[in-house]
Amino acid sequence: MSQSTPGTAQDGYRIEHDTMGEVRVPASALYGAQTQRAVQNFPISGQGLEPAHIHALAQVKKAAARANQDLGVLDAGIAEAIIAAADEVVAGQHDDQFPVDTYQTGSGTSSNMNMNEVLATLASDGDRQVHPNDHVNCSQSSNDVFPTSVHVAVTAGVVEKLLPALTHLAEALETKAEAWKAVVKSGRTHLMDATPVTLGQEFGGYAAAIRYGIERVEAALPRTAEVPQGGTAVGTGINTPTGFPQKVIANLAEQTSLPLTEARNHFEAQSARDGLVEMSGALRTIAVSVTKICNDLRWMGSGPNTGLGEIAIPDLQPGSSIMPGKVNPVIPEAVLMVCAKIVGNDAAIAWGGAQGAFELNVQIPLMGTSLLESIRLLANASTALADKTVDGLVANEEKARFYAEASPSIVTPLNKLIGYESAAKIAKHAVAERVPVRDAVIELGFVERGELTEEQLDAALDVLSMTSPKA
Amino acid sequence: MSQSTPGTAQDGYRIEHDTMGEVRVPASALYGAQTQRAVQNFPISGQGLEPAHIHALAQVKKAAARANQDLGVLDAGIAEAIIAAADEVVAGQHDDQFPVDTYQTGSGTSSNMNMNEVLATLASDGDRQVHPNDHVNCSQSSNDVFPTSVHVAVTAGVVEKLLPALTHLAEALETKAEAWKAVVKSGRTHLMDATPVTLGQEFGGYAAAIRYGIERVEAALPRTAEVPQGGTAVGTGINTPTGFPQKVIANLAEQTSLPLTEARNHFEAQSARDGLVEMSGALRTIAVSVTKICNDLRWMGSGPNTGLGEIAIPDLQPGSSIMPGKVNPVIPEAVLMVCAKIVGNDAAIAWGGAQGAFELNVQIPLMGTSLLESIRLLANASTALADKTVDGLVANEEKARFYAEASPSIVTPLNKLIGYESAAKIAKHAVAERVPVRDAVIELGFVERGELTEEQLDAALDVLSMTSPKA
Amino acid sequence: MSQSTPGTAQDGYRIEHDTMGEVRVPASALYGAQTQRAVQNFPISGQGLEPAHIHALAQVKKAAARANQDLGVLDAGIAEAIIAAADEVVAGQHDDQFPVDTYQTGSGTSSNMNMNEVLATLASDGDRQVHPNDHVNCSQSSNDVFPTSVHVAVTAGVVEKLLPALTHLAEALETKAEAWKAVVKSGRTHLMDATPVTLGQEFGGYAAAIRYGIERVEAALPRTAEVPQGGTAVGTGINTPTGFPQKVIANLAEQTSLPLTEARNHFEAQSARDGLVEMSGALRTIAVSVTKICNDLRWMGSGPNTGLGEIAIPDLQPGSSIMPGKVNPVIPEAVLMVCAKIVGNDAAIAWGGAQGAFELNVQIPLMGTSLLESIRLLANASTALADKTVDGLVANEEKARFYAEASPSIVTPLNKLIGYESAAKIAKHAVAERVPVRDAVIELGFVERGELTEEQLDAALDVLSMTSPKA
Amino acid sequence: MSQSTPGTAQDGYRIEHDTMGEVRVPASALYGAQTQRAVQNFPISGQGLEPAHIHALAQVKKAAARANQDLGVLDAGIAEAIIAAADEVVAGQHDDQFPVDTYQTGSGTSSNMNMNEVLATLASDGDRQVHPNDHVNCSQSSNDVFPTSVHVAVTAGVVEKLLPALTHLAEALETKAEAWKAVVKSGRTHLMDATPVTLGQEFGGYAAAIRYGIERVEAALPRTAEVPQGGTAVGTGINTPTGFPQKVIANLAEQTSLPLTEARNHFEAQSARDGLVEMSGALRTIAVSVTKICNDLRWMGSGPNTGLGEIAIPDLQPGSSIMPGKVNPVIPEAVLMVCAKIVGNDAAIAWGGAQGAFELNVQIPLMGTSLLESIRLLANASTALADKTVDGLVANEEKARFYAEASPSIVTPLNKLIGYESAAKIAKHAVAERVPVRDAVIELGFVERGELTEEQLDAALDVLSMTSPKA
Repeated sequence: MSQSTPGTAQDGYRIEHDTMGEVRVPASALYGAQTQRAVQNFPISGQGLEPAHIHALAQVKKAAARANQDLGVLDAGIAEAIIAAADEVVAGQHDDQFPVDTYQTGSGTSSNMNMNEVLATLASDGDRQVHPNDHVNCSQSSNDVFPTSVHVAVTAGVVEKLLPALTHLAEALETKAEAWKAVVKSGRTHLMDATPVTLGQEFGGYAAAIRYGIERVEAALPRTAEVPQGGTAVGTGINTPTGFPQKVIANLAEQTSLPLTEARNHFEAQSARDGLVEMSGALRTIAVSVTKICNDLRWMGSGPNTGLGEIAIPDLQPGSSIMPGKVNPVIPEAVLMVCAKIVGNDAAIAWGGAQGAFELNVQIPLMGTSLLESIRLLANASTALADKTVDGLVANEEKARFYAEASPSIVTPLNKLIGYESAAKIAKHAVAERVPVRDAVIELGFVERGELTEEQLDAALDVLSMTSPKA
Repeated sequence: MSQSTPGTAQDGYRIEHDTMGEVRVPASALYGAQTQRAVQNFPISGQGLEPAHIHALAQVKKAAARANQDLGVLDAGIAEAIIAAADEVVAGQHDDQFPVDTYQTGSGTSSNMNMNEVLATLASDGDRQVHPNDHVNCSQSSNDVFPTSVHVAVTAGVVEKLLPALTHLAEALETKAEAWKAVVKSGRTHLMDATPVTLGQEFGGYAAAIRYGIERVEAALPRTAEVPQGGTAVGTGINTPTGFPQKVIANLAEQTSLPLTEARNHFEAQSARDGLVEMSGALRTIAVSVTKICNDLRWMGSGPNTGLGEIAIPDLQPGSSIMPGKVNPVIPEAVLMVCAKIVGNDAAIAWGGAQGAFELNVQIPLMGTSLLESIRLLANASTALADKTVDGLVANEEKARFYAEASPSIVTPLNKLIGYESAAKIAKHAVAERVPVRDAVIELGFVERGELTEEQLDAALDVLSMTSPKA
Repeated sequence: MSQSTPGTAQDGYRIEHDTMGEVRVPASALYGAQTQRAVQNFPISGQGLEPAHIHALAQVKKAAARANQDLGVLDAGIAEAIIAAADEVVAGQHDDQFPVDTYQTGSGTSSNMNMNEVLATLASDGDRQVHPNDHVNCSQSSNDVFPTSVHVAVTAGVVEKLLPALTHLAEALETKAEAWKAVVKSGRTHLMDATPVTLGQEFGGYAAAIRYGIERVEAALPRTAEVPQGGTAVGTGINTPTGFPQKVIANLAEQTSLPLTEARNHFEAQSARDGLVEMSGALRTIAVSVTKICNDLRWMGSGPNTGLGEIAIPDLQPGSSIMPGKVNPVIPEAVLMVCAKIVGNDAAIAWGGAQGAFELNVQIPLMGTSLLESIRLLANASTALADKTVDGLVANEEKARFYAEASPSIVTPLNKLIGYESAAKIAKHAVAERVPVRDAVIELGFVERGELTEEQLDAALDVLSMTSPKA
Repeated sequence: MSQSTPGTAQDGYRIEHDTMGEVRVPASALYGAQTQRAVQNFPISGQGLEPAHIHALAQVKKAAARANQDLGVLDAGIAEAIIAAADEVVAGQHDDQFPVDTYQTGSGTSSNMNMNEVLATLASDGDRQVHPNDHVNCSQSSNDVFPTSVHVAVTAGVVEKLLPALTHLAEALETKAEAWKAVVKSGRTHLMDATPVTLGQEFGGYAAAIRYGIERVEAALPRTAEVPQGGTAVGTGINTPTGFPQKVIANLAEQTSLPLTEARNHFEAQSARDGLVEMSGALRTIAVSVTKICNDLRWMGSGPNTGLGEIAIPDLQPGSSIMPGKVNPVIPEAVLMVCAKIVGNDAAIAWGGAQGAFELNVQIPLMGTSLLESIRLLANASTALADKTVDGLVANEEKARFYAEASPSIVTPLNKLIGYESAAKIAKHAVAERVPVRDAVIELGFVERGELTEEQLDAALDVLSMTSPKA
């Protein structure tokens, strides 16, 4: 997050103006009057847009300047100066020049004007006066530029950060799935002893959940990657030259190597931000998957002496300020908090998404910042989970097999031989008398009565064979 | 829930009219034109208002008729006929006459007119024509009557059903807390072995959480129990005689024995439904408490052979259609689903609550039905949890003590004698070598070196003494 | 919803048994001991599964019986009897035989056993004793059957109800978009006057939002339509014959004509219900879209004399019990409440989805019932919105054009001629002096000074031409 | 937010150790090994705890050191050095020494150890070695200290920031309510013309909503202000001297002048964080209230020429980068985004609150940071709304009265004279013929027929008189 640092200006002030009059601006600031008004108007959170968002906004400005030059509505000198200025912002050289709070006007106009002003300052020199509105914002409106910048930043975050991180996590889980494919343990349903599974099967299921998560994000991406650029004020494209949207979006796609496309309906594209709601919903689904996985890991690793203890989670730091020697599953806990945050951000995004009216949604900065945060958190958390937890997990194979054989549900294969009701009697006997299932079968006379042979029994009670249907 | 049963009318139809014209109504229906229009307009969910809500609405009509009679704006014969009719509805005799869907006009006008029509029909006879608007609805508007009916029903649900059920659950938990006050077990933090607690202390904590839940509901109740009655159309009280709100609300409080009061600001009271949002938030907090409690119970009861097995949860039904003899914690599961539903209803209620505009919120039926459902579910779930699960829990004292003694965190009292870092060495040694903590102390030479005496060691390692600070 | 009607049994009781002992069951009930236990164990909501869900469950049983017969694990007579029984349930002949509450065991075992018992009763005759577990449930577990039934019911609801209803709504909106493509009005951003749009463009945007909603549901459907059938108890497929999952799912797809496929990972498929969370997220996104559309409609239709009054919404019923002649936008209100409910159900579904552990999620009935309700509500609401509101909308073209010309933002095309700052002076002058923009241009001397010709001015200020970029 | 700035350490490193071994720490850092491990373990969000939270944590350390000294478990020199060090942290002198991410171990142990290490460094000198665990953390555990610090920070935020800001907002609204008590306008229900209200009545309603919000926070505060301090590891108070909790909490209350009390049940107090969920629910309710108020303000101020235009919202900044002269309601928009964020944080907090297990909830940092953010945002937004919007609102009294008289619902007082159905005919006639209601009465012959006198009519149709019940 870039910090809002309202110009304290030990270096003094200069006077800038906009259509409402004069404003004192810190002498060294690259921004101008409208940015300064916004700094004063919105002392709400102390936090501005995500840097990745600011860089995306500069990319849009560059793409627009190129299109304006090509289409003859901006002269080459001015366009090239804007492009060069935008390149500096994209490179992160001016992150401190964007002090406007996320909680600002709902269109992001203040951030758009902040960018227009910074680029105009950078692009101007003695000979060349570049105007924030007439030049930098040429053929544009905050109402298409700002949401476009959100969708570009979100698409970049998803493609460049999130999907690779999820793939990395899936691979880490798949490595364990392969390594543990013969480590048999008791299944648990309703938290109660069930028929056997392998630890590898469980981790294969976790990997599959993450792979589905990747599909979910990819399924939503085409709509998120549609950008409203070209609709200007209200979606009609007023004040744009013919061919502008196609050209600017082609530029943007080329500059960023992202699969960006033009909105199929510019009125929907400016009046609603549903593509962000949808993408947030995909992330929320992944948060649900990851929550379940982390809880399973924590329970498998619970103990060392009073829990399940099927796996050991890597020791990363002392766990307690009072209980010496304690070590806790700290990464899964951090990841679980990330999941909670994603659920919360998702609620905020849907709430904001529903509050559009007529030609504009006015919760765009909130939606953008929240979704970009969710993407960033989920990417970082996935990487941490893979590298600091999954990779280092160690199975307690002995304990796992002990559990597999201790589960009374291993009577299940007997259903086919003696029926569900007889099998239930055996299971209940085993639990009540604290004897192995095999002993319970014998004690209840099933072999003696010839209902089962010992060979059938041994075959039926092989726990590893119960982990596949051929059993 | 009353079912929407649009008049299939094998008995034919009669013609009714309202200000928009004629409508065919099932011949036997007590309701009239406006109800029938609503049945046709809203084929959305097939579900009407909660019966408790309909009864509350009839109570309001009765209270209003009494006030109108007292204040001389309704003649005694008509008022008394309306009161008698309302009594029948309150008694549940006409539940099938309220077919209007919950998803109707957001003010609940259709349900208010449904009530007006039914009472007018019941109150009319050959000599006496009672009019739905001019008589039954006299001095009222849907905009005060309908939200009042929601608040009355909610207050009744809370006072008569929910608080007793929560108290019952708290008592059940307190009984266990007392019974198990000396059953020592291992505490668990981060799911990892911690210092000892008693099972009674845990159940005392659960009981306290429920008692706090009761306080939460009681803290919200004064605002929920404020009713907008008397504000009529827009909060101004247009078309009410002087003193009407005070009289009608006094009647209502007396009829229902509920702590109902007049809204302190009738404009807030009709334009917002925040009192419902607040109460829903209180229920949501209880759902969070109960979720944690039910998850603890399920984990404590996990097993029988591959889980924690500290308690046994009563067997209520066979648990699996394929795994013979399996029994599951079915009541905690049902209760956990109730908690999820309450969280969902709460989200819907807040969403609806935010959508008011000017003099009216138009999501009242949704808010009312959702909150009344949450109250009903939480009351029933609390009772079931107390009676079918908590009461029948059995502690496995032997296993509990085994865990207490097995936890490496029982080194904690040694901090004060030898410091945190030395104690950590002991705990790590105990886990690594799979020896009791006492043996680890000896093996590491603390006694031999005179840092600890055996007496100090034995006193420090007494697990039950660790469950209170005097230790 | 099917109502829970615990056997009041005026016809007396019969004794049934299960593995836990004897149970008194209403003499006429088709169900048996386990259903009766569940009725007694879960007096929570009084509401059972959605009928569509029960029918889907019967389809699964039929598909399984067919597969069992083909694979030789069930003899033909029994299989055929089960199939015939299932056909009766699918046809809705026995809806009253499924009294188990939604808030039951989280695996849905009680509902699965309810189905097993009903089908066993129907399929048994003097000669043929069909057993609920050994025959009807053969090769199955609640843990694969029950979630499969949810996914089948959800897929059916989406394909057969929701998508057609959304398409119908999109078409209704598109008809208006076409009809009103030249009805010019003022755009509004931040609720403030903006540059012109056509009413047709707005409705085109609404239609696009619904079309995107359809894409969202279709994008999620492949994962929702994957079913876990064949995994039995824990995903391993224990107690299934070779080839069973493929055969049963092929049968199911053929019986229902739905695009059902086998889960690609049976461990994910039984331990998580993320496909439901994802689909709910898609519906939630549509609810967000529809909320915005309905609010726009309500504001456009606000008035008749103190609101915007750009369109007239069809009169469906008297709007007020106290204000005579008032008519309200009741269908958009009902639809907005449906949207709130979908948001709430979505929160409950995500909450439930996160609570799985090891081999099973135990919030399946809650998740299924909530999602099926959302699908049903959204389908019905979409149809009502199309038929009872959108189709009958009438534009007030005169007022719309008046607004277009009154908006000070029609100065925007002047930016290109005289710059943003000069244009701002004109707009401010027009508002302050309450004169048309054209007069303000003249009054401020732009024509006189030769900065603009009158021809340029007239061309620039043509409001309809501002609704496309060529302007 | 304090930024995570993992020691880049141009000044080199020093070696620190903890119970897991050696760690390289930036040479100039005041913190030690465990903080450094946490910095490396949790590269998740780049954001640490709120500074207010860090200061509260230091207050707890000070209070504990005082209690430890009094109770004789810490010698005076060490205690006093810790106290002096804590005072520096409370004063904000070391905010940059707390680099641990919010997404860390769920108990906040890393932040607690960060504080222990910083205070130990500050308190140590050549003669005096102060140990992070044995001295600074003496008689404490992260499991009581960390949640205590959250509750202290929340209580401080509520008492010192939020309640004053809400009071300030309520007063601003009340000033307008008083000023505009005779500014009559049309009420609106369902967005449609209703009977008259005064603008003052509306603002009185808004003020009341905020006053109720204050009550809601105050009603929740007693439970939020209960702190778990003294329970140490698991609630039992292990390793505390007798009387410790009472003394430390008395110190804390005295140091902070906050109404802090000891948890009535230390097991509930450490295993659940329900007090935070409850307080968040109160804030969420206020967010709902404020959302409605801001939307009303925006609609009242909509225009200038195509909206309602009943009030003028202060101009704060140019509203559009493309539409010259446009001014938007930017503060209400920023506040509406704050409300959305609070709703989202609330969802995250409830989600986190439900995930406790046994003796600890492990989502405390997420819950604390989210709730503290909500408090800060709501306080700042309330102040901005009061000072930058409400104070400067100007009523358009002429337009307001015009609307009042134009509403067809002013027929409502005629109900009492001629009945609801006749009044409906008049309203419909007035709308259809576009004539004033008074003319419609005449045209329909009510005066001619003697059903009404002109005097009655004039009295009945006085719009200001309709704004109180005496009318």
